[in-house]
Amino acid sequence: MNDAPVPVLPADHPLADGRTTGSALLRALRGERTGPRAVWFMRQAGRSLPEYRAAREGVGMLESCLRPDLAAEITLQPVRRHHVDAAIFFSDIVVPLRLAGVDVDIVPGRGPVLGSPVRTASDVAALPSLEDVDFTAIREAVALTVSELGGTPLIGFAGAPFTLAAYLVEGGPSRDHLGPRTLMHADPETWQALTTWAADLSGAFLRAQLEAGASACQLFDSWAGSLSAADYEAHAAPASARAFAHVADLPVPRIHFGTGTGELLPAMHAAGATAVGVDYRLPLDEASRRLGGVVPLQGNIDPALLAAPWNVLEPHVRDVLRRGDAAPGHVVNLGHGVPPSTEPDVLTRVVDLVHEVPQ
Amino acid sequence: MNDAPVPVLPADHPLADGRTTGSALLRALRGERTGPRAVWFMRQAGRSLPEYRAAREGVGMLESCLRPDLAAEITLQPVRRHHVDAAIFFSDIVVPLRLAGVDVDIVPGRGPVLGSPVRTASDVAALPSLEDVDFTAIREAVALTVSELGGTPLIGFAGAPFTLAAYLVEGGPSRDHLGPRTLMHADPETWQALTTWAADLSGAFLRAQLEAGASACQLFDSWAGSLSAADYEAHAAPASARAFAHVADLPVPRIHFGTGTGELLPAMHAAGATAVGVDYRLPLDEASRRLGGVVPLQGNIDPALLAAPWNVLEPHVRDVLRRGDAAPGHVVNLGHGVPPSTEPDVLTRVVDLVHEVPQ
Repeated sequence: MNDAPVPVLPADHPLADGRTTGSALLRALRGERTGPRAVWFMRQAGRSLPEYRAAREGVGMLESCLRPDLAAEITLQPVRRHHVDAAIFFSDIVVPLRLAGVDVDIVPGRGPVLGSPVRTASDVAALPSLEDVDFTAIREAVALTVSELGGTPLIGFAGAPFTLAAYLVEGGPSRDHLGPRTLMHADPETWQALTTWAADLSGAFLRAQLEAGASACQLFDSWAGSLSAADYEAHAAPASARAFAHVADLPVPRIHFGTGTGELLPAMHAAGATAVGVDYRLPLDEASRRLGGVVPLQGNIDPALLAAPWNVLEPHVRDVLRRGDAAPGHVVNLGHGVPPSTEPDVLTRVVDLVHEVPQ
Repeated sequence: MNDAPVPVLPADHPLADGRTTGSALLRALRGERTGPRAVWFMRQAGRSLPEYRAAREGVGMLESCLRPDLAAEITLQPVRRHHVDAAIFFSDIVVPLRLAGVDVDIVPGRGPVLGSPVRTASDVAALPSLEDVDFTAIREAVALTVSELGGTPLIGFAGAPFTLAAYLVEGGPSRDHLGPRTLMHADPETWQALTTWAADLSGAFLRAQLEAGASACQLFDSWAGSLSAADYEAHAAPASARAFAHVADLPVPRIHFGTGTGELLPAMHAAGATAVGVDYRLPLDEASRRLGGVVPLQGNIDPALLAAPWNVLEPHVRDVLRRGDAAPGHVVNLGHGVPPSTEPDVLTRVVDLVHEVPQ
């Protein structure tokens, strides 16, 4: 798949006509500091919104990701409600696994569960070919979303190969990710084959979204923080780099995010990201220092403070903005996803505050 | 409780007669580098051992912690089997909660579950008084264990106040610890009252074990890694310091351990620890550098590698020993608990290797 010819962007593609390149999001991701700051929230499309719960009623998670009308509607909901500066494509990191033919489902209250884990060289060899993965539903959902978004940019989304591989090896969510962390040392060849496969799948998933009209992309490495810096560099970053390489010819920003990654930020940047997402644990000025002061950052309001009174949350948001000024560009976001229990009005108020404070 | 007079050690107490002060563990924790290295494993007493599963058959977790004969037997099992240089008292961080009268149980497959969470000022005010907590079962178990251990030292154990408070606020295990992290900012006074109570309980639990014959103690802060350094210093470290202060008059080493704590090590040391446990993510030489090169360390074999072939595990253990030489003293341990699926013979082999390599 990596050898496939690079498709030419159609003339009416947002990346070709530059329609959204003037947006606050893209300005910030390119390191410009003009106009109000851009703000969006990881998991803004989701369980915190009553309109989301209504739209999802009786529809399974994976089904909702694969129905273009529903995925588009859910993606648009937080943009309408909060006036955020970007939509994030409503999907799940295991969606491309399902499209590739892997037996996976998302079990409510538990998360992604695989029909059978992938642990040996022969398990990896038996993974489906990625030649003919059909991303039609994704392309349709993205095109529909972009057409309804007006000028607001859409961010495409994929799980990073390490996190995808961690799910494949464990067969579901786990706390310590012992299986993948053992495999990368015990059988590095199998691990490399597995993460290469996952990288090509994530890369193709990102590319499908970008070709259909997304203006930026983000690779989520949910479990990267379970690795030492040495293990991350040797056994995870190369696959993230391979995923990003699938879209490196497109003129779009590439964001790389994980949690607990304070020690990994330089390697996450070096993997081919043009901007780095920072979790709530590390102040943005310190994150920028670790990145040599030359990388646009995204983050990092503490999601726990969304449930605190406004007189606690407001100074925290202002502190995040102040520290973010240390980076060449700053997209305001949370330092992790929106907690399901979040009061939606709080997010709207944070957006208003961010837009109000001059940069 | 903090104002109670300091009990005088009985003449036959190990701390009084110095019986175990010459042990490899205590030498290492005091920064001495003579003889073979000391090694033990967090969660060495537990599910990886068939004799543990046999001893626990039909007995609930909390019941097994509170039956002196059973707690002693389980504590001794890994010492007999692996010839480790320390026993760790078999218990659970919620045991003192139960002894204090809090409605808590350990549900198999889930973890500690509270009858009702503790979230408000009045919930905290309603926590039981700590004046008359009865640690008799703990003292008996420790005394019995020490009498059967011969010269091998016993390490006393308690959960750090932040982690205890996190369980109390959430009402059970959680992934992001949003409840306690919100509370510490939203209502710092209630948070301080709660963690002070937890500190006095953990401190009393440690003291009971030390008075009954334990030769060192360790505070486990399982969830500390969910905090930024600033939050840890402001809202967790003071309570850990208060817990350690309960035993600071006793001539015993105090170890402080948590996972994901690379950024927190100096604050964990400053809280009154005499040695710091390091998780598997941070190499010991780097950890020692962050601690100014003056703090004995404990750690940090990657538990994931216990399931790898010996030709992968052995060089990793040797690397840990080499990096540990950067610290003034080094107690070899894992960088997290023994995974339940660990093959016991692997642990025995690691002990033999550690004892064989000269320091």
